[in-house]
Amino acid sequence: MSTPSIDPKSFRDALGNFATGVTIITTSAPDGEPVGLTVNSFNSVSLDPPLVLWSLARDALSLEIFQNTEHWAVHVLSSTQQNLSNLFASRGGDKFSQVETEAGVGGIPMLMDCTARFQCKTAYQYEGGDHVIFVGEVLDYDRSEAAPLVFHGGRYAHATHRVQDHPPRSPWLGGSFNDNFLGYLLGRSHFQFYGRIRPLLEAESLSDDEFYILSTLTLKHNMSLEQINTVMQGVLDHVGNGPLSALQDRGFIQLEDDEYSLTQAGSDCALRLISAAKAVEAQVVESLGEEEAAVLKTLLTQLLDGIDPVAAELWEEPED
Amino acid sequence: MSTPSIDPKSFRDALGNFATGVTIITTSAPDGEPVGLTVNSFNSVSLDPPLVLWSLARDALSLEIFQNTEHWAVHVLSSTQQNLSNLFASRGGDKFSQVETEAGVGGIPMLMDCTARFQCKTAYQYEGGDHVIFVGEVLDYDRSEAAPLVFHGGRYAHATHRVQDHPPRSPWLGGSFNDNFLGYLLGRSHFQFYGRIRPLLEAESLSDDEFYILSTLTLKHNMSLEQINTVMQGVLDHVGNGPLSALQDRGFIQLEDDEYSLTQAGSDCALRLISAAKAVEAQVVESLGEEEAAVLKTLLTQLLDGIDPVAAELWEEPED
Repeated sequence: MSTPSIDPKSFRDALGNFATGVTIITTSAPDGEPVGLTVNSFNSVSLDPPLVLWSLARDALSLEIFQNTEHWAVHVLSSTQQNLSNLFASRGGDKFSQVETEAGVGGIPMLMDCTARFQCKTAYQYEGGDHVIFVGEVLDYDRSEAAPLVFHGGRYAHATHRVQDHPPRSPWLGGSFNDNFLGYLLGRSHFQFYGRIRPLLEAESLSDDEFYILSTLTLKHNMSLEQINTVMQGVLDHVGNGPLSALQDRGFIQLEDDEYSLTQAGSDCALRLISAAKAVEAQVVESLGEEEAAVLKTLLTQLLDGIDPVAAELWEEPED
Repeated sequence: MSTPSIDPKSFRDALGNFATGVTIITTSAPDGEPVGLTVNSFNSVSLDPPLVLWSLARDALSLEIFQNTEHWAVHVLSSTQQNLSNLFASRGGDKFSQVETEAGVGGIPMLMDCTARFQCKTAYQYEGGDHVIFVGEVLDYDRSEAAPLVFHGGRYAHATHRVQDHPPRSPWLGGSFNDNFLGYLLGRSHFQFYGRIRPLLEAESLSDDEFYILSTLTLKHNMSLEQINTVMQGVLDHVGNGPLSALQDRGFIQLEDDEYSLTQAGSDCALRLISAAKAVEAQVVESLGEEEAAVLKTLLTQLLDGIDPVAAELWEEPED
């Protein structure tokens, strides 16, 4: 039945264009040893009776165990379980010593903190070329609200729901800046976020410029005026001596060998602001959703990697 | 084999926690009529021989056609094909009159612009409870780089790849603002984006404040000083008469009955800036990737929906 025209590598790439969740399937070997492996060929089959399926390679070490076991469990992984997926995708090693489990139907090992789990009894085993298709009747299941781990194009991915209930925009927005202009969205998001931090600065009697300089000095401990200006490029207009003198006068920064650094008082003030700003961030993350916030941060980092020549350098560890 | 303890609704919810791509499966009826339906129970089975599978409900109108056809095609949908998915998920109606097709193996109708397509010959039909499992041998396939449409939790979703090659951050970043602080990412992204627009403003001899006011007046055609200040809240410090007078002196805005509006010259200038700014946006979108940019915009819109009381109002159509 083999089709000679099909190149395995490019066929695998084409199959990879179908996005899937990621599961770990577990069972117990006849000697009671826990067995598990990462699988993305899972899918649902039937509601009544409740059936699910997955495929296992004929050359898998665990094939014989699954062919002879009565029960197995499917764990649909959440977005935080990428390491677990990698662990169970590797061959050999004592995977279960590194994870917490509980006993499921027939004593099979069940993993924790998944977004869904299905405890199954083998209903059918079907011929599937170089794989065997296992169809299981679902005896029990549970689920959580955790966001899913996704696999696509040979890599892990995040899934974020599309906004469906957004009202359609009127045509009058067509020729103007509108709510879908990226620069506008970035600007407005930044200003809104920053608007919640500004009262903290006012309480510390710090200007925006002074705040940017303080927070940059928490990253790079010693910086010349030239370095400060390089890093601030695109953030502030050219930094003159004004805000630096003001910070020096308040005893927040010191100048030694042409390099500025934080004093203890400056460091304390920066830490107060960082702590308060992280509380603001936590509110915003809660409003947006944790998975959504993680994706947003990933995308902004990618955006900066593409357009910001200084950001990467800024986050390198200082040499001192 | 039915398990009475399983509630179909909650079982379906649990299955929905496994994310999937979305496919449309097509074939031809014996009378030559094209047949197609949306399916997310697709998955890969075997590489050698190349096999894929999907499940079809026993009560589906097209069951008998698929049980008797020799060939069918799987179309893995791209992120732009949500409407196509909805069209083929509906029962009845002449779906194919609304879409472009080409002929595949055995004359079956093939849809265009998918992220992968598999032309198959039925290899097995297996019992699967209230569904039939169709396993097909892949005779031919093609793929594109288009981003996938994803289905999760009963809703459409975007998939964005995780950043994997990011260097691990040093512990010294732990107590400071770092590259994972949302406010910092928003600020830096905004400034980098805006840094590319600023030369356009300089060429038009416009200050930042004047630019914000002009672009806001393209949204809301007539605004009092108070309305301008409401909308600009969190974007500018309080708008005094300075930038408004400057724009008036240049003949870009006019004041009538206590409301400001754009003159023809002001509107022309705003259109020049909008067109140039959209070119900047296009560069950024290209660098980030179209799907990623779409997700970024969605997330920023959601963020603003949560924390920006004025944004929604700003994008409402003016009454005049």
